[in-house]
Amino acid sequence: MHRVLHIGFGPVGRNTARLLHERRLGAVIAAVDCDPELVGRPLREVADIPDSSISLVGSLDDVTNWDEIDAAIVTAASTVPASMATFTALLERGLPVVTTCEEMTWPRLRHPELSDRLDAVAKEHGGRIVGTGINPGFLMDTLPTMLTAVCRDVQSITVSRVQDAGPRRVPFQAKIGAGLTVDEFNARLAAGGFGHVGMGESLFFLAAGLDLPVSDWSETIDPVIATRPLRCDIGPIEPGMVAGIRQVATGVVDGKPMLSLVFQAAIGQADPHDAIEIVGDPRIRSIIEGGVHGDTGTWSMAVHTLDAIVDAAPGLHTMADLRPVRYRRAP
Amino acid sequence: MHRVLHIGFGPVGRNTARLLHERRLGAVIAAVDCDPELVGRPLREVADIPDSSISLVGSLDDVTNWDEIDAAIVTAASTVPASMATFTALLERGLPVVTTCEEMTWPRLRHPELSDRLDAVAKEHGGRIVGTGINPGFLMDTLPTMLTAVCRDVQSITVSRVQDAGPRRVPFQAKIGAGLTVDEFNARLAAGGFGHVGMGESLFFLAAGLDLPVSDWSETIDPVIATRPLRCDIGPIEPGMVAGIRQVATGVVDGKPMLSLVFQAAIGQADPHDAIEIVGDPRIRSIIEGGVHGDTGTWSMAVHTLDAIVDAAPGLHTMADLRPVRYRRAP
Repeated sequence: MHRVLHIGFGPVGRNTARLLHERRLGAVIAAVDCDPELVGRPLREVADIPDSSISLVGSLDDVTNWDEIDAAIVTAASTVPASMATFTALLERGLPVVTTCEEMTWPRLRHPELSDRLDAVAKEHGGRIVGTGINPGFLMDTLPTMLTAVCRDVQSITVSRVQDAGPRRVPFQAKIGAGLTVDEFNARLAAGGFGHVGMGESLFFLAAGLDLPVSDWSETIDPVIATRPLRCDIGPIEPGMVAGIRQVATGVVDGKPMLSLVFQAAIGQADPHDAIEIVGDPRIRSIIEGGVHGDTGTWSMAVHTLDAIVDAAPGLHTMADLRPVRYRRAP
Repeated sequence: MHRVLHIGFGPVGRNTARLLHERRLGAVIAAVDCDPELVGRPLREVADIPDSSISLVGSLDDVTNWDEIDAAIVTAASTVPASMATFTALLERGLPVVTTCEEMTWPRLRHPELSDRLDAVAKEHGGRIVGTGINPGFLMDTLPTMLTAVCRDVQSITVSRVQDAGPRRVPFQAKIGAGLTVDEFNARLAAGGFGHVGMGESLFFLAAGLDLPVSDWSETIDPVIATRPLRCDIGPIEPGMVAGIRQVATGVVDGKPMLSLVFQAAIGQADPHDAIEIVGDPRIRSIIEGGVHGDTGTWSMAVHTLDAIVDAAPGLHTMADLRPVRYRRAP
């Protein structure tokens, strides 16, 4: 049973911490969040963990029981630069660290120097760290990489995650632009207000695993337009309005678009699924019907990756070099 | 590029060796098969490898270039006892070894003491060994184990491999009993002449990965009966005759059948596929449409696992503890 320092108590953090306790795979024995609203509050309340008796503190400096901590989970920032101080402090103490920081699933894409620094600090002090999650972290990178193992030849790979946002929470519906006009959508897009983080990371995870020299890559974001009247919690959507988002990342190898990742989430989307198509020998078409629930998937991945990073050698890891992560029954 | 000693030149061995060369991921620089028909013949002919200049020898004692060999592939016997002398000799030389020996995918099920011995010899001499393949080795064990990572709760797992044997080779059609009467099928079954090797290994691979205490397990084999006239290379099959085989392994945990593996191969089988169904939260239903070609899959897995076992620590490994295996583009 891991004795965990948990940092970051947004929705992902709260649910990850609770799952760790529910499954008796670990216990959060120190909890940090910089939000003044949360500091001093009992973890029992914040994360709905009845058997917890600790309260949240506002920074790592306020953690007093370092000797009892044997692993860390960080569910805070999405970028490596915003997380460096935290990661470095944990690695300097020789801890195994799991983070849902999206950029950490393939940190070398945008931050090669920071990646080198994390790797060096980890190796010097016996720490180890890995970024994980459902997407990025599994569905568009780890899983398709692994499926290629059965192919004697791979010509191209397309991964599609297609979701019906109808049953999702209103904040998610807002995040994908549902109910906007096309002009509003494009204005928000131009202002940088849209987009799933991690498509590039998944693309380069795939490319690196397969030794594919990506010479060029691009990412596009477009609105999905409603073609019939739609109803959802965010309000009615008329035909011609925005029902959701379609994001496509493409990687070019030897002048050809060899890797394609498609993320589409829209109100009323038909046939939601996660698909992996490998054009090769044999040709593989793998479908997860309905798709994997993104929220549950992410906190499950975080909890299950803890075992694997504890067992790993010191250094900066990715899901490509850790032993396969899996569900583990509660002891 | 791995410099490989390859042992065993049946169909799987020939194709694995050829793929290694075609993909320029390795070169077979020593080749062994005990079949007197093959000894002395050029590898170029035996495995259709144009750039090879070596010939097959009849035993490890006849291998002369040990200093040049840095890895081994063994595609020979299906059981651990039949392979012990070979594996031990390779591990004593500190080599990384990949084998398609079915029992080696989870050797502790039937041979805990031999497994301990292999692990000890490997660790003493710096060798490492793993059993792999498509089934056992991937579709019914490694892949479903990995898919459970996204679940916060797992109640049961069913893996089904359903194949149309119509387009397969006649020896395969004969192996599944196609064209027999039910009495002939049952007589051959009673004589031990039937059955896919490795279902138990896959079952216990899954159980061990998920920390499931299997209290009881069983394996059943039944004929699939033709319900309409069928035509195939082995001859016409009338309704009431045997079209193929259905094999089911079940693992009981806490009094409930929690793990089910189903292998069904029959002439004229509708909707061939590989399916993984995890009853849990979230519920996962993953389908590979058409199923993965068993032959190509096995030799691809063997070639791709070579990288991972070379990187692994000394000892006896399984696919559950190696880093995820993947296709690698030819250099």
